[in-house]
Formats: sequence, structure tokens, C-alpha cells
Amino acid sequence: MTVVLGLDPGTRHFGWGVVRRVGTRLAHVAHGVLDVERHGDLGDRLVAIESGLVEVVRAHAPAEASIESLFFAKDAQAAAKLGHARGVALLVCARAGLASFEYAPARVKRTIAGAGRADKAQVAQMIRVVLGLGEVPRSDAADALAIAVTHLQGSRLHAPAPKRLATR
Amino acid sequence: MTVVLGLDPGTRHFGWGVVRRVGTRLAHVAHGVLDVERHGDLGDRLVAIESGLVEVVRAHAPAEASIESLFFAKDAQAAAKLGHARGVALLVCARAGLASFEYAPARVKRTIAGAGRADKAQVAQMIRVVLGLGEVPRSDAADALAIAVTHLQGSRLHAPAPKRLATR
Repeated sequence: MTVVLGLDPGTRHFGWGVVRRVGTRLAHVAHGVLDVERHGDLGDRLVAIESGLVEVVRAHAPAEASIESLFFAKDAQAAAKLGHARGVALLVCARAGLASFEYAPARVKRTIAGAGRADKAQVAQMIRVVLGLGEVPRSDAADALAIAVTHLQGSRLHAPAPKRLATR
Repeated sequence: MTVVLGLDPGTRHFGWGVVRRVGTRLAHVAHGVLDVERHGDLGDRLVAIESGLVEVVRAHAPAEASIESLFFAKDAQAAAKLGHARGVALLVCARAGLASFEYAPARVKRTIAGAGRADKAQVAQMIRVVLGLGEVPRSDAADALAIAVTHLQGSRLHAPAPKRLATR
């Protein structure tokens, strides 16, 4: 059994999702969104993200983490802000001994919705179907589940190796 | 007495510097560079940065932290990477109860070297003079000391209030 934590970083809403594979079957474990907006300034929100992720890792004991690569970043300010949340996430995962893998957004969309340009609503609808959920998850959590599924699908299908986080 | 921790984030070399003010005088306390390159992948390097900064805060008990704002970021990839290190720094500071303040690079250069376009070598030379150091500090540490001095000068001179880190 492999348990994977998918992460969709944000400094206001941070999505996470846990999916496990038993044999060739995928099963939903849990998902959620850390809504840290109310925690005041950026430092305090990062502390809240850290605490939330530590709790998620403690509760579900994933073996690996999966996160979007940074290819998509166009706006430098937005990319830097996002980097703050992503950095805290990678920190928590590394401290817990999880290996982290990254995937380009288009790959995630193609895996889940069959098209690299699928919109967020399509991804959320498809993740509901793929994991047999009772309702459509919130967008940030759906993205996190999607990237966890992408990692598990990739390793099941022996697709080209995912990119282990670069050393520089 | 006010003790300020200046931070110059990087995911390979992370500069820090501690400066204190007693009355109207500034005094150098300590400085250094966390060279985390050898720690392997990004997650492991962020763990090393966290440990290093926790140790610096424990050793010198600063009351406030000072860090460059993100205005300068032009390249989105570089900005995101830098954001990882900056996020871990703000996390450590917030956990320790430090208030964090940010300054634009041009303001730092103007404060230290008298010109907003001073190069790194000029800033390092001037920080040596301002703090009466025996030798010119390494560039990353010099930048960190410079931003600590900028914060202390600003609060001494009752200059326009520094920007407390924005809430979004």
C-alpha cells in the first residue's frame, strides 16, 4: 500500500488530499483546505500552514508527497508569494522523511481530465468520479487530490519517472 | 536596547546578521552565511535553513527581524525559489514571536552606501565601516547586516514607518 499526500499550496487557502493505492486500485483517504486568511500577517499564516500540515502528516502517515512544479509561474510577485507556502510545505515533508515529487499542471490535468487545458471545475468533477466521492471537493482540495492521483497513476503505469525535486 | 536580525534569503546561501542599538549607537553582534548547498534536494536544504535560523534566534534573541521586500523580483522562477527560503525564514521568526519588517533593496543601499544603485561590494565595504568590523563580511552576510542597520536607522530617525509584512 502506498499513501500519497497531494499539496496545492497557497498563502490564503492551502489544499491537501491523501490518496492510497492498494494493488491497482486507488482509494480516497481524506482531503481538506487550510483556510489561514484569518491568521493575520504572512508569518502567522505560514505558522498556521505548518501546524496544519504537521497534523495532516501525523494523522495519515503518507509515504510520499506530490506537488505542482513551478513551471506555470508567470507573475514574479505571485510566484514568490506562492513560494513561501510551497517552501513551508516542502520543509514539513522533508522533516517527516517524505520524498517529494513534482508534476507540471498540464500533466495533472491530462491525467485527471484527459486534457492539459481542463479548467478547475472539470478537474474537480473528474476527481469526484475517479475517487468515487459523494460530492465535488472544493477546488483547492480537488487540485491536491488530483496531483496525488497523478503521482500514483504515474508510478502504477511506469510512465516516465517523475521529477524528484531538483537540487538547485 | 534593540536587537535586530537581518535576513538575506537564498536556497543555497542564506545570509544573516545581528545588530543591536544602545541609545543612538549601533553595534555589531554577529553574522554568518548558512551554506546549505551540500544538503541535497530543496526540502533538505530548507530543513537546514530552518535549523540554522532557529539556532541564530536562540543564540542572539533578537526582538525584530528585517528582510528585503519582494519588489525586485523579475524572474518568476527565481522569485519562487527565493520565496521558499524567505517563507521558511518568516515562519521561524513568527514562531519565535519576532515582528518582521521589510524594506526595498534600493532603500537599503541608500541607507548604507548613500546611493540606491550601489553594488554589492560597495555595500559590504560600507557595512564594514559603519559597524567597525575587522574585515569585509561575505556578500550574503553583508546584505543581511545592511538590512538590519536599515531597520535600526529607520526607527532611530523616525523615518516613514517601515512596511509591516502585508496581510495578503
